[in-house]
Amino acid sequence: MRYVSFQVGGRATFGIAHEAGLVDLGARLGDQVADLRMLLDAFATGFELPHIGTVADYAPDEVTYLPVCTPRKLLCIGLNYEEHRKETGREVVAHPTIFGRFADTLVGHNQPIVRPRASTDLDFEGELAVVIGRHAHQVPQERALEYVAGYTCFNDGSIRDWQRHTSQFLPGKNFPSTAPLGPALVTPDEVGPLRDLRIESRLNGVVMQQATLGEMIFPVDALIAYISAFTPLSPGDVIATGTPAGVGWKRVPSLYMTPGDTIEVIIERVGHLRNGVVDEAARG
Amino acid sequence: MRYVSFQVGGRATFGIAHEAGLVDLGARLGDQVADLRMLLDAFATGFELPHIGTVADYAPDEVTYLPVCTPRKLLCIGLNYEEHRKETGREVVAHPTIFGRFADTLVGHNQPIVRPRASTDLDFEGELAVVIGRHAHQVPQERALEYVAGYTCFNDGSIRDWQRHTSQFLPGKNFPSTAPLGPALVTPDEVGPLRDLRIESRLNGVVMQQATLGEMIFPVDALIAYISAFTPLSPGDVIATGTPAGVGWKRVPSLYMTPGDTIEVIIERVGHLRNGVVDEAARG
Repeated sequence: MRYVSFQVGGRATFGIAHEAGLVDLGARLGDQVADLRMLLDAFATGFELPHIGTVADYAPDEVTYLPVCTPRKLLCIGLNYEEHRKETGREVVAHPTIFGRFADTLVGHNQPIVRPRASTDLDFEGELAVVIGRHAHQVPQERALEYVAGYTCFNDGSIRDWQRHTSQFLPGKNFPSTAPLGPALVTPDEVGPLRDLRIESRLNGVVMQQATLGEMIFPVDALIAYISAFTPLSPGDVIATGTPAGVGWKRVPSLYMTPGDTIEVIIERVGHLRNGVVDEAARG
Repeated sequence: MRYVSFQVGGRATFGIAHEAGLVDLGARLGDQVADLRMLLDAFATGFELPHIGTVADYAPDEVTYLPVCTPRKLLCIGLNYEEHRKETGREVVAHPTIFGRFADTLVGHNQPIVRPRASTDLDFEGELAVVIGRHAHQVPQERALEYVAGYTCFNDGSIRDWQRHTSQFLPGKNFPSTAPLGPALVTPDEVGPLRDLRIESRLNGVVMQQATLGEMIFPVDALIAYISAFTPLSPGDVIATGTPAGVGWKRVPSLYMTPGDTIEVIIERVGHLRNGVVDEAARG
């Protein structure tokens, strides 16, 4: 199953993406299940989708995509691919490097990433994101994948100078509308084993990053075990699993995104997330 | 005015603390203003408190205090007192060091701090916390204090080994129920100028940290200006302004909190926040 969140006719809703188009679940399930996070909450307490069929309500291109869900907690992993760790010059560490983002940094598929007035150092980071499906606290690694609702693509858009103001990355990772999440939440049965899946990012069609998901230093089950050891996770929470080598600021010369650019994150079996870049100033 | 959030008879509510006791605003204002954050939201859009009087509904000691409010965003400043920066051996930086906490790390006045099973390295950090009163985005420093709803005491309870797992502090700062916030939100007119106010923390009655608020490297207006430059703040959001020197892990030998301890954060004109320590295991 592929779930999407979107806006149509000024109304925010969510649904299922089929080949033929989008089935609007929000319109069918009523206020009790008004968005995808509420659906995940409902699933976690035993709710089952009624039979709805696959007749499309909307074509995929007639809606405005929203971030695939709105997490209560959005945790991002840094330095989780060896080649990326090396390009940043950071030390090997025995645990995942974690920082937080606020949900207002997220944007949907096809929606613009906003380059803030404060800086031109806007960089891309293509990543696999994990969406949590069940309340998860102190989960053992061997059972951690049972807590996954699905996977989606993520772009951890980063304002590099603000990220390096101090030891803590948070400011450079929290400008509004810098982090695309989507297009769809794809359930684990459709994704299959992650190990051999390719992840790639492309700036204006040129491949910038490529790896396979099996290259992660801390795989998804290890991340869920580690994170849930210190903070309880709930349905709809998101863990962004880190980016491969090839980011813009470690290129010589540095390569930052500018208004008019198109950045894509493509993960085999998971999705193809595409976003343009606009200037904050241009939006007034 | 001194606002408090509390539970009584199993009901969560909030109110005003007078000398004579607590006036229950939640019971009087109805569901539209059911907690202190909603009151701050309402104030931000022009709501004025009706005349309610000062006849107490509850004695201060007959309620269970909740965290003074539940922020959407809770930002903490590290290394904001020079003597503390020196004791940690960190470099001088030109910007505030910022990390995030989730709201489920908060506990109310008189409620136990929970030492997790995962570690015994539970440390205290007495701090002034600022509660935001108006939507604040890209606020100039000279107007920043207009966005303050009030001040309260904060204890940035830290699991030091987890804080040092990597470069990023987040894991050690996000164990549940490690961060007291309260007892009351005190409005700026009652607090007056911050500069000369004393802040102190005491472990089992012994003074561990003491400073004046004027010793902050980045004062409150600078923090609001810097933070609101990258992330929009809204009523009820909290900025914890950093801790003075004297934390437990920089003592020789290290001094961590253990079950049965009492830790207090006392800030002149702002409040006296007192919490015991319990073991996670003991709570089952």
